[in-house]
Amino acid sequence: MQGIVLISVAMCLVPSLGWAQTPQRCKSPDLFTGGITVATQDEKVYAVGKYAYDAINQRIHLGEMGTYDHKNFTYEVLMLYKEGVMYMIHRHNQTCEKVALQSKFTPLEVPLDASFMSQVVLGTLAYPEQGLVVNVWTGQMPDNSGTYMMSFTELGCLPVSGFFQPKTNGHGMRSHSYFDNVLGVKDPDAFVPPPFCQSAKLKVNRDGKRADFFSVFQ
Amino acid sequence: MQGIVLISVAMCLVPSLGWAQTPQRCKSPDLFTGGITVATQDEKVYAVGKYAYDAINQRIHLGEMGTYDHKNFTYEVLMLYKEGVMYMIHRHNQTCEKVALQSKFTPLEVPLDASFMSQVVLGTLAYPEQGLVVNVWTGQMPDNSGTYMMSFTELGCLPVSGFFQPKTNGHGMRSHSYFDNVLGVKDPDAFVPPPFCQSAKLKVNRDGKRADFFSVFQ
Repeated sequence: MQGIVLISVAMCLVPSLGWAQTPQRCKSPDLFTGGITVATQDEKVYAVGKYAYDAINQRIHLGEMGTYDHKNFTYEVLMLYKEGVMYMIHRHNQTCEKVALQSKFTPLEVPLDASFMSQVVLGTLAYPEQGLVVNVWTGQMPDNSGTYMMSFTELGCLPVSGFFQPKTNGHGMRSHSYFDNVLGVKDPDAFVPPPFCQSAKLKVNRDGKRADFFSVFQ
Repeated sequence: MQGIVLISVAMCLVPSLGWAQTPQRCKSPDLFTGGITVATQDEKVYAVGKYAYDAINQRIHLGEMGTYDHKNFTYEVLMLYKEGVMYMIHRHNQTCEKVALQSKFTPLEVPLDASFMSQVVLGTLAYPEQGLVVNVWTGQMPDNSGTYMMSFTELGCLPVSGFFQPKTNGHGMRSHSYFDNVLGVKDPDAFVPPPFCQSAKLKVNRDGKRADFFSVFQ
């Protein structure tokens, strides 16, 4: 059952010289929070939690991560891309790892090189509030490590799901699902390392593991 | 990338003696059409096509099935549960297989024994038409062959997705995604076997395979 719990263009629609019905690329709102599930096809990775996303200051906070199947990553992760630092925060024992981020900030948006795949309606448009129009885009990962398929709401450009198929099999397809999105951030402190992180020494990497958004879930 | 392109209760809400916020079980509309994808975790099965669903007369039509990855099931399937018959229709060569259905009609609804898992918002409710409220239910398959997780729109009770995890691994988790749903059926002929099926002899099974909704995709 792992993996997939569940998945706008209008905000960024500009007069198109092409086929007017083709959705235009779009960028998600700069500041929002929501829930996220991350899973891999081999079921070795499954996590569900909350995230806070700040594209202006290039900050992502992942918190309250839960698990399935005896796996456990209940720590929080704070990624401060402008500073190039990632904090792994363990509140239960007030410990903190500070690691150099090994990737640049990638805003939630339809990538420039993405190809439009399809527009689908979840539910139905027969009645108000019974359906959602979603656009699906596909393309190659920036580092050419595989292919992706991402979906965003037609209105609002909120992420619904992302699927990443690596060239090297590894865990197999990785899926991200986004839900319960709220515009804005209720708690700006989410982006501030807690006091007990101040003494953490910067490590170049996590015991040989990469330190980026994806590696958080491995 | 296989598998997951992309999942109401209000219609059947009755005054609840329990927690008013707990979604009530619901039944999908009796007659609707839409798109469906079916995929298995091992990527051996992937199909996308259109379906027409008629709960009143217990009929399901699957048509225009497309495929991925060199697999090919472009035939149509018509399941007439009241007659206990399934037609595999190959229009390109006007051939037809007529097989005894080996399962009873199961309406699209939240099963009686299902447990409410969660309610999620796809997109956001911050603005109209940017979000969809979906309820997720889980339970055991009727034949105790595994567990399922199904999601329906909160309003309208339209299916959004279904995940089926068999006890015996087989193809691994099977996912169904429903999209582009339209209430009613544009072409009632979809439920009528074409003339060239009249001469088809009834077979007890498909060369040893089961003849039911699931087996269509194997």
